[in-house]
Amino acid sequence: MAAAAPPPPPSAAPEPSMAPPETTPLGHPLFTRIRLATHLDIPFIHKLIHQMAIFERLTHLFTATESSLAFTLFDSPPFRSFTMFILELSSSPIPPLPSPSPSPSPSPSFTPIEKTFNFDILINDPEKDAFSVHYGNDQVIIGGFVLFFPNYSTFLGKPGFYVEDLFVRECYRRKGFGKLLLSAVAKQAVNMGYGRVEWVVLDWNVNAINFYEQMGAKVLPEWRICRLTGDALQAYEHADL
Amino acid sequence: MAAAAPPPPPSAAPEPSMAPPETTPLGHPLFTRIRLATHLDIPFIHKLIHQMAIFERLTHLFTATESSLAFTLFDSPPFRSFTMFILELSSSPIPPLPSPSPSPSPSPSFTPIEKTFNFDILINDPEKDAFSVHYGNDQVIIGGFVLFFPNYSTFLGKPGFYVEDLFVRECYRRKGFGKLLLSAVAKQAVNMGYGRVEWVVLDWNVNAINFYEQMGAKVLPEWRICRLTGDALQAYEHADL
Repeated sequence: MAAAAPPPPPSAAPEPSMAPPETTPLGHPLFTRIRLATHLDIPFIHKLIHQMAIFERLTHLFTATESSLAFTLFDSPPFRSFTMFILELSSSPIPPLPSPSPSPSPSPSFTPIEKTFNFDILINDPEKDAFSVHYGNDQVIIGGFVLFFPNYSTFLGKPGFYVEDLFVRECYRRKGFGKLLLSAVAKQAVNMGYGRVEWVVLDWNVNAINFYEQMGAKVLPEWRICRLTGDALQAYEHADL
Repeated sequence: MAAAAPPPPPSAAPEPSMAPPETTPLGHPLFTRIRLATHLDIPFIHKLIHQMAIFERLTHLFTATESSLAFTLFDSPPFRSFTMFILELSSSPIPPLPSPSPSPSPSPSFTPIEKTFNFDILINDPEKDAFSVHYGNDQVIIGGFVLFFPNYSTFLGKPGFYVEDLFVRECYRRKGFGKLLLSAVAKQAVNMGYGRVEWVVLDWNVNAINFYEQMGAKVLPEWRICRLTGDALQAYEHADL
């Protein structure tokens, strides 16, 4: 939970153009797709998590390696354990996922979500090369991710999803992509009959709180997280129970 | 998380006897065992959760049924998904788990934890009959449970455990059983190489906070839980992503 949802800014509509809409060009289309992450994405995921740690000023807590991620992620069917959606972006239509698909055969079902945005200004991505994925001759850019996994409510007697991390790379923020990723998790929860989607936010992050409340979430004021970790946790190895 | 850890009181040593220890009887032994819960326990679990809802004054949120629990719990190997430890109590030694075992073949490994307590005063359990399990001619009493499941830290690049509920029936409180259940989860986390054990507590529950801090946990002051549920969640079913 330390690396929990960084503050996604309120999603903002593109700035209105001053010219009459009928005569202006359509702007710059951006094609997006949300798909399941796989082992092939781990080098990108590692870099994204590192950027998140920098953003949260928590690099001293960042000890994940590509191999620790590879060892612990994506060895279970999606949605039943740790699951990640990847945001792909391209200025041209994104080709269908190749077969054999890089996304594991999803169970329960999930169909990649595609949406086209239109921006007045071209987004300049200074890290385009470092986050490129190639599908044949087509190149798409990885723009962000959301990591989530099932939790459980005994009162409801059913599972939910807990969102551990939501991250969009800096040049793609404030454009609705964080909302798109989180909405995809919420929609999947409804599709699976789950009762809740939960995550945490820093109490001083007013922008993030406003954004989450606009999405329909309530912030629970009284609950605090307790964490047992490091040496305090290791002490239980030889505890005489 | 609504039904999160009810406030386990600080574990208290038995009241000291006024008579000289050398000449007094050994008191009342209580044999305890922590084992994995199975589908067979669901009627008891349902009753325990209901008691927890009463204790937390949250019965209006309690909609779980035996069948909703049966449908959602214990269909995965323990520790990889929703997992429950059950606390068994008996005034005589508890027989080994029968074979075929009522606990599913555990993977990863878990050996039931046994511990004998000694109390000066016999514990009067007014609900003994409602919480009895029979192993042949032997009867044991179910005294409480802890429900937990894996969570994930991207910064650590490894899983942890999240403790959703910790509950000990009223007549068995303040005797160290809550500590025993939570310690069993912590020990299992260490055994599996996990990085954290986390749970939530109400900010006004000073007794619980003291108890958790004595166990080595830190309370994180700044994080708040966001929850999307009910109609606000259902709205995403037909959301145009």
